[in-house]
Amino acid sequence: MHNKGLTADASSVFQIKIDSTGQSFPCFAGQTVLQALTDGGVFMEANCGGRGTCGKCRLQVLQGKVADPQGLSAVARQEGVYLACQIYPSENLTVAFQEKEASAKGSVSVNFEDDGNPLLKKVVVTPEYPTVENHYSLQEMIGHALKMSGFPAHIPDSPHLIRQLAAAASPGSGPITIVLACGEIIALEPGDSSGSLYGVAFDIGTTTVVGMLVDVRYRSVIATHSRTNPQAAFGADVISRIDAASRADGLEAQAGAVRQCLNQIVRSLCISADISARHIYAAAIAGNSTMEHLLLKVAPVSLTLKPYAAAFRHMAPFPPAEIDLEINPGGKILLLPNIASFIGADTTAAVLATDQDILNSHTLMVDLGTNGEMVLGNRHKLFACSAAAGPAFEGAHIKSGMRASAGAIEDVTISDDVYIRVIGPGKAAGICGSGLVKAASCLLKKGILSASGRFDQNLARTLSPRLAERLRRQDNQWEFVLVPGKDSANGVDIVLTQADVRQLQLVKSAICTGVEFLLEKVCPSKDMPVYLAGAFGNYIDIESALGIGLLPGLRPEQVRPVGNAAGIGAVRALLSREQLARCGHISEKIEYVELAAQPQFQSRFLANLSFPEVSL
Amino acid sequence: MHNKGLTADASSVFQIKIDSTGQSFPCFAGQTVLQALTDGGVFMEANCGGRGTCGKCRLQVLQGKVADPQGLSAVARQEGVYLACQIYPSENLTVAFQEKEASAKGSVSVNFEDDGNPLLKKVVVTPEYPTVENHYSLQEMIGHALKMSGFPAHIPDSPHLIRQLAAAASPGSGPITIVLACGEIIALEPGDSSGSLYGVAFDIGTTTVVGMLVDVRYRSVIATHSRTNPQAAFGADVISRIDAASRADGLEAQAGAVRQCLNQIVRSLCISADISARHIYAAAIAGNSTMEHLLLKVAPVSLTLKPYAAAFRHMAPFPPAEIDLEINPGGKILLLPNIASFIGADTTAAVLATDQDILNSHTLMVDLGTNGEMVLGNRHKLFACSAAAGPAFEGAHIKSGMRASAGAIEDVTISDDVYIRVIGPGKAAGICGSGLVKAASCLLKKGILSASGRFDQNLARTLSPRLAERLRRQDNQWEFVLVPGKDSANGVDIVLTQADVRQLQLVKSAICTGVEFLLEKVCPSKDMPVYLAGAFGNYIDIESALGIGLLPGLRPEQVRPVGNAAGIGAVRALLSREQLARCGHISEKIEYVELAAQPQFQSRFLANLSFPEVSL
Repeated sequence: MHNKGLTADASSVFQIKIDSTGQSFPCFAGQTVLQALTDGGVFMEANCGGRGTCGKCRLQVLQGKVADPQGLSAVARQEGVYLACQIYPSENLTVAFQEKEASAKGSVSVNFEDDGNPLLKKVVVTPEYPTVENHYSLQEMIGHALKMSGFPAHIPDSPHLIRQLAAAASPGSGPITIVLACGEIIALEPGDSSGSLYGVAFDIGTTTVVGMLVDVRYRSVIATHSRTNPQAAFGADVISRIDAASRADGLEAQAGAVRQCLNQIVRSLCISADISARHIYAAAIAGNSTMEHLLLKVAPVSLTLKPYAAAFRHMAPFPPAEIDLEINPGGKILLLPNIASFIGADTTAAVLATDQDILNSHTLMVDLGTNGEMVLGNRHKLFACSAAAGPAFEGAHIKSGMRASAGAIEDVTISDDVYIRVIGPGKAAGICGSGLVKAASCLLKKGILSASGRFDQNLARTLSPRLAERLRRQDNQWEFVLVPGKDSANGVDIVLTQADVRQLQLVKSAICTGVEFLLEKVCPSKDMPVYLAGAFGNYIDIESALGIGLLPGLRPEQVRPVGNAAGIGAVRALLSREQLARCGHISEKIEYVELAAQPQFQSRFLANLSFPEVSL
Repeated sequence: MHNKGLTADASSVFQIKIDSTGQSFPCFAGQTVLQALTDGGVFMEANCGGRGTCGKCRLQVLQGKVADPQGLSAVARQEGVYLACQIYPSENLTVAFQEKEASAKGSVSVNFEDDGNPLLKKVVVTPEYPTVENHYSLQEMIGHALKMSGFPAHIPDSPHLIRQLAAAASPGSGPITIVLACGEIIALEPGDSSGSLYGVAFDIGTTTVVGMLVDVRYRSVIATHSRTNPQAAFGADVISRIDAASRADGLEAQAGAVRQCLNQIVRSLCISADISARHIYAAAIAGNSTMEHLLLKVAPVSLTLKPYAAAFRHMAPFPPAEIDLEINPGGKILLLPNIASFIGADTTAAVLATDQDILNSHTLMVDLGTNGEMVLGNRHKLFACSAAAGPAFEGAHIKSGMRASAGAIEDVTISDDVYIRVIGPGKAAGICGSGLVKAASCLLKKGILSASGRFDQNLARTLSPRLAERLRRQDNQWEFVLVPGKDSANGVDIVLTQADVRQLQLVKSAICTGVEFLLEKVCPSKDMPVYLAGAFGNYIDIESALGIGLLPGLRPEQVRPVGNAAGIGAVRALLSREQLARCGHISEKIEYVELAAQPQFQSRFLANLSFPEVSL
């Protein structure tokens, strides 16, 4: 929904038509083609977050002219082939995808790799009905038919399968579709239903729940839908959720809330893609440890009491009824494994998505969600730690804070005055994480904030009048006005207060200290790739992030935003038994570094509260 | 409930006291000690059905005198040790069991063998709670504790187990009991609950459902309870049940009926033994193929349509909720495997109980229930067939027929007049299977019935007047009056009609022809043991059964009643993974002989309708 700055203006809307499907999507002024398609529900992989570096979003413009201001698309591309993230329509366009795969329902997405080991599979057989001579049961008939199809001699051996079999099979009844999950028969359907094979991947965050509907045949995400985690009613962070779970019915209520949320997402996905939820046969779920405990209705209290033990890390695939998920009742829930009490399956999935566990060279992954998790290592050894960053990046505990949705200031530039970019449509209503980091970085550069994190009213005297008037004392603390009330959505000043800066310092120090401790575990090369994961990681301005000292000792060239790595990892696990098994290995392999138990953690945390010194 | 003939008379009641438990049971006149204890709910193995040959029911009389009219007990026994089936109290007795095992609740039974491979097991561990250093989850803590106890590193990995774990474990919370079924963790209980470990075995017959509660620690049946199969409302035989299942809601209704019946039995067993159903962790179920289809709510229609295919033979252990069975919800239902469409798991279990599949020498097993199933062979090869005998032995389609319960004539002697023995208490109300066979045998011997099965009124002229007056023509057919209305329970004559004899001939020929075909498959020795299984098989008079030609070419010395072999087999499977696995092998190994497809089946069936010629 990132609509750069300007309010939509009918005259500046161009249509982007997808050649293969005939679908058309509006592209508003200031939007890249990638943004327009993403807003239209077309999933395109864009690991670099639209910076023009990963090359994943390339498409061919068949008709119409585009502007390519940075020229990144032009480099070494075929004629007419551009990066969707870099181009703006100059007129209506018709486009085709380079790695195009139209799904059954006409949506379009980039495919995930096929490693030949699918987790879900449909096999259509036309079994030979038993005879008086062979005395086969219908069960053996299916086993035989599967064997003839080149599958090991599976036989359906649970009551619900036998009921489906007895209903589907009669002499001369024709083909039967066998649905396999993890090599196990999970459903038998009359006729040939091989055209409908779906799974859903969930990333259950403390703040946001994202669901992705996957067309398994094409290995592609055909719809995505996200909702605010309704457990927010029980507190913004995991600690308050765990507290709430220990009160009467608090566990049941929170489990019920998130289960309902998952079902709402499933229904929305099914409507978007025009499919039946009965054809969703598996759900891969990545959430942090607390989210997974609450989802399963497992008392999470041990997570917060010393020694901070999770009740579980690994869970065998289990039936949907166990979490009331309304997909095919014979289906499988794949709850991805946790790593430690405060490093959950979302991190496992993010490691899977970024291949940290199989790469020879070291990589660092920093997942900036409500908490911050960091993983550093290579195929031989991985270290992870969790920084209790808190939800400041999601707007909590920040006076004018808000999530990255319509009205949020996502970019700030400070020169003689303050210039902002707002997520449209509408006027500025608050500031989200990326805006916060950028604002702080600018204020530091200008000297309005000192390295110690104080508003420096002395130095402020040298400022331009427009800036100087924005720095003021209110309610016993200094604050900086980003948007005066007359220009804001609700008439209230949008400000950054001294207390907000302190919150940012706490978050920054938590992340920075965690990264420092991890870096000391290995000898990374100076070119070591650093993946910034999480929705926030996608939109943060990397120079600013480095400017406030979030990632100590790292250079901008090293840093690559990788988007919702947890979600991408969950899709991967959903599509492949091998990838699912890798999640187990990742969970086993990672060495958890308990920051609070590290020598000098407290003193280093305090030292890292300061921002880097800026030479003005 | 077999109370030989006489109505109970307070003056002739002696008390039998069990020394170890202090329990006392009344023994009415004419009852053996075995009968009195069995009526009192004490399970004693008595494979020979109380004929004094198997020696299983021996006990020691500590106080009181007994009569041992046949002297069988005296042979080669220690002083004071008798066979309970052979002795009658002469005064109040105190007894002790030779292989005594008092269960937790004080009931007494003979033990089943321990092969060191229990299906159900409780392991009590006192786990070491995780520390800040080791970062264990509670799940890993249990895995570790199990490993320390000498078990493979199981970890509980399903949501319900993790919920139980999170509820049971906290720092210093003491022992946790781990319940294992088939090597899988199925429940976690706080504290040490190892004293309560039960299973239930069901034999689901077309007519009767029997449940046996097993104290797994002592490998003993501590309570038995049986009920009429409520599906009787849908028809007496499997064909009419299958017909009913194809009508609207007929399948659901019959599944519901038998499930309710199982739950009623479970409740009765729990009350008898004073235990909680939560401590029943597994149910082994043996039923014929139709009963198993109906229980699982699997459409059974394919069983009756050519090629008579069962929907399934084998079923993996599944959770109790699948059949609404109210035992521990984490428990396992072990539905024993069927052999063919009309040879069910009851036969599999009976083969297990009689060890036919592991013996070197040939044995023949004939299970006389509502249908007749026969198995012949040895460890190398087994053949089985099913005779559509119908429920005549259970009283159906017989004018004065009834089940073997109070009021049933179970024995008939015909000399100058007719003498009967009735299952007490009360007057004769009808005739059950064993009485029917005995009556027919006597009538044949007297020449009142000819070998062709006709009442011979010519020969009848030579009869004593008392017999002659019992043979009469009524409603256009001949019949023989066993009990005149004035002596019967309800004032109605109890008779054996020409049509009843025809029914008996059909049953007899079906069994007899089946046995003939099986005998031709192998070369059995002339001493080959023949096991008569089924409740009816236990009470039938073997001479009479041979007299009417039920078992062609066999001699009385070969025949051994083995009681409810299916039920005993189910108990064995419940107690041992090895025995359970043997059921699978039995089901795979048996070659099914389809009688109707055998050459000359029809002509031989017709020929076998005749009774053997009797030399008068």
